[in-house]
Amino acid sequence: MDKKPLIVLNFKTYAESMGEKAVVMAKYCEEVSKDSGVKIVACPQIPDIYRVAGSVKIPVFAQHIDAAGAGSYTGHITADCVKSAGATGTLINHSERRLLLADIDSALLSAKKAGLATIVCTNNIAVTSAAAALSPDYVAIEPPELIGSGNPVSKANPEIVSGSVKAVKTINPHVKVLCGAGISTGDDVAAAIELGAVGVLLASGVIKAKDPKAALFDLVKKI
Amino acid sequence: MDKKPLIVLNFKTYAESMGEKAVVMAKYCEEVSKDSGVKIVACPQIPDIYRVAGSVKIPVFAQHIDAAGAGSYTGHITADCVKSAGATGTLINHSERRLLLADIDSALLSAKKAGLATIVCTNNIAVTSAAAALSPDYVAIEPPELIGSGNPVSKANPEIVSGSVKAVKTINPHVKVLCGAGISTGDDVAAAIELGAVGVLLASGVIKAKDPKAALFDLVKKI
Amino acid sequence: MDKKPLIVLNFKTYAESMGEKAVVMAKYCEEVSKDSGVKIVACPQIPDIYRVAGSVKIPVFAQHIDAAGAGSYTGHITADCVKSAGATGTLINHSERRLLLADIDSALLSAKKAGLATIVCTNNIAVTSAAAALSPDYVAIEPPELIGSGNPVSKANPEIVSGSVKAVKTINPHVKVLCGAGISTGDDVAAAIELGAVGVLLASGVIKAKDPKAALFDLVKKI
Amino acid sequence: MDKKPLIVLNFKTYAESMGEKAVVMAKYCEEVSKDSGVKIVACPQIPDIYRVAGSVKIPVFAQHIDAAGAGSYTGHITADCVKSAGATGTLINHSERRLLLADIDSALLSAKKAGLATIVCTNNIAVTSAAAALSPDYVAIEPPELIGSGNPVSKANPEIVSGSVKAVKTINPHVKVLCGAGISTGDDVAAAIELGAVGVLLASGVIKAKDPKAALFDLVKKI
Repeated sequence: MDKKPLIVLNFKTYAESMGEKAVVMAKYCEEVSKDSGVKIVACPQIPDIYRVAGSVKIPVFAQHIDAAGAGSYTGHITADCVKSAGATGTLINHSERRLLLADIDSALLSAKKAGLATIVCTNNIAVTSAAAALSPDYVAIEPPELIGSGNPVSKANPEIVSGSVKAVKTINPHVKVLCGAGISTGDDVAAAIELGAVGVLLASGVIKAKDPKAALFDLVKKI
Repeated sequence: MDKKPLIVLNFKTYAESMGEKAVVMAKYCEEVSKDSGVKIVACPQIPDIYRVAGSVKIPVFAQHIDAAGAGSYTGHITADCVKSAGATGTLINHSERRLLLADIDSALLSAKKAGLATIVCTNNIAVTSAAAALSPDYVAIEPPELIGSGNPVSKANPEIVSGSVKAVKTINPHVKVLCGAGISTGDDVAAAIELGAVGVLLASGVIKAKDPKAALFDLVKKI
Repeated sequence: MDKKPLIVLNFKTYAESMGEKAVVMAKYCEEVSKDSGVKIVACPQIPDIYRVAGSVKIPVFAQHIDAAGAGSYTGHITADCVKSAGATGTLINHSERRLLLADIDSALLSAKKAGLATIVCTNNIAVTSAAAALSPDYVAIEPPELIGSGNPVSKANPEIVSGSVKAVKTINPHVKVLCGAGISTGDDVAAAIELGAVGVLLASGVIKAKDPKAALFDLVKKI
Repeated sequence: MDKKPLIVLNFKTYAESMGEKAVVMAKYCEEVSKDSGVKIVACPQIPDIYRVAGSVKIPVFAQHIDAAGAGSYTGHITADCVKSAGATGTLINHSERRLLLADIDSALLSAKKAGLATIVCTNNIAVTSAAAALSPDYVAIEPPELIGSGNPVSKANPEIVSGSVKAVKTINPHVKVLCGAGISTGDDVAAAIELGAVGVLLASGVIKAKDPKAALFDLVKKI
């Protein structure tokens, strides 16, 4: 990681960022990244990883992987397969796709073995500490009640961000902290960095914006 | 469906059928299908659907879809997205990826709306009846204890196949019955058809064979 | 079942019907049942079954059982154990405690073997049909969006009740239909019976009433 | 905790320790505890808590609680209800009843609020560290492959016990470490204490023994 913040854009299962539209959205990310020098990661739906990763040069992350590896695991999403499709990292344990504690650990081991960067999503400071103990590359603290609210965590609950940063420093200083939930503007990003986060995880603030490319440019304007 | 049996090949998360090897495996299926006139469906891992579907002309099915549709469902596999990636159908409720009853129903509705063919997997005659009441295109009866055993359901437990066929006829005669678990030879396929199934669902019998293409040719030899 | 309707009162995890208050609530049910001749079933929290069943003579049902039987299933709720604690029946697959399709089937088999009466909860006509194919004693159709709404399913969506009754008659005429969601008055009960249900499943309409005993008396007034 | 080791006996859903037999088993625990001065905790099935807790004076723990509290959570096991039934503590996240990470955190908060002691089960050193970060009273490290094996973790994998003790000391020194899996004799207990554990969690070694009371006496013989 360089010192510039990291922007992670979760495409969720929104119609506005699926299939060919996922490629378009990822190209916006690439353009804004190239123009600003800010690292932007695109997280399309899992079936879209291959075509998105083949169309852009920015990092593409999966939205989820399961604990399973190679074998009799029909329908499971493996680290090896998303890697082979072009992903270079993955979200794990997003609030919309929670995992068993033991499976977060297994998924992290599979991801590391496959060479994927990892972002474990958490919902409060205690869970952030627990996640940090499992040594992912990043934790992303996202209070579920603020997700999609337009009310940025960096303003609504700054203590949860600074508290997460502090807790992670104690438990495992190699883990970096992102924050999410309600983020949609460059001011929100700046506030997050101010609180000790190295970047943000967001979705609707860009994907559901009237002009997603403009929203992306706004996000990086203060960086 | 024509009168020739249907062969559904589940790639599971086997290393032998992932990534570029998934494309190779699907091409074997295509070659054998073209040569024999038997319809063969390839079910690669979900991140592989796009590249497999872009490489062959046989039907490509997803191994699983979730109940979720467009929206805030990070990491979920939607009918619309696998369709957009090139799938024309999907397995639902495989024994390695069981679903809540209400979610099987929702997934079926999403699949139908997206134009995907549907195969609901079941484990005994009662569950086959329940699945048939939800009106998928196919049910695939697979006693879990025989999956991957090399001991074909059509010999080990022929009553579960004929009983499923009979039960489905009563509940919903539009639903067709596949059978799986332990299937690996053309004799197994012939026995399944004899019992009233319209085809088979199999995995390791082909994927783990020393010569998968030869195994596929063997499967269709009596058809 | 006699011809009088059946009232099933779900105590949920409400504070108003837990511990000693569960015993009090069950005694209200007993008093109203004795007075009216209407069969009322009490469904306390699982840890409360033993003391409730030891205090009243009306039937006590569990709110849930798992698919597991005797063995290495720490923390699972078995049919045998709730039976031994005094339950004579159980809800299965309540909308707040959904089960995998295969587990509904296993739980039903365990319940039957243990001699427990069974009520499988469902959310729409298709799922009611599927549940009926598994041969429980009752299905209870409860559209989730009406649960706790005070807007009775018998008025808000009468077709889902009559449609469920009709569907069950086709699939398995031995299964009886209850309806739930939004039920709180004797008029609601009368309307449910009119639509072909043999009784109702309710919770907050009684438990959260200012005077639960009066609410129970109101429920049976038209019977 | 005094300095004597703690013995936690998990009754699982074994037929040998259900219903009235749960009371008998708990009385054996009470007798051996009284005789030896060693604290023994009985963990009966959840529907058995009330009658077991009413029959013995040793601590009775639940095998599991859910994250849910009072409200619309049909079928969930709440901390308040098991407390009201007589439990003074609970296992959480046993390998046979794994929980989502966020739910372990919620269940711990509910348990603390209800005044229940807490034991979070874990499967390896990393997961033990994560669990310790959530501040339960105890973690119980149990490699799943050794559970019920008769091959004690203290011999088969002593590093996982000493490693867990060391990891917990770093993360949260207030958390105490139990170990489990394969424990059945007093020698196993002594070895566990030697490795830094404060006690053991066991099940089949006692419950499935020909003479459970003798097995309990053997467990405490070296203490």
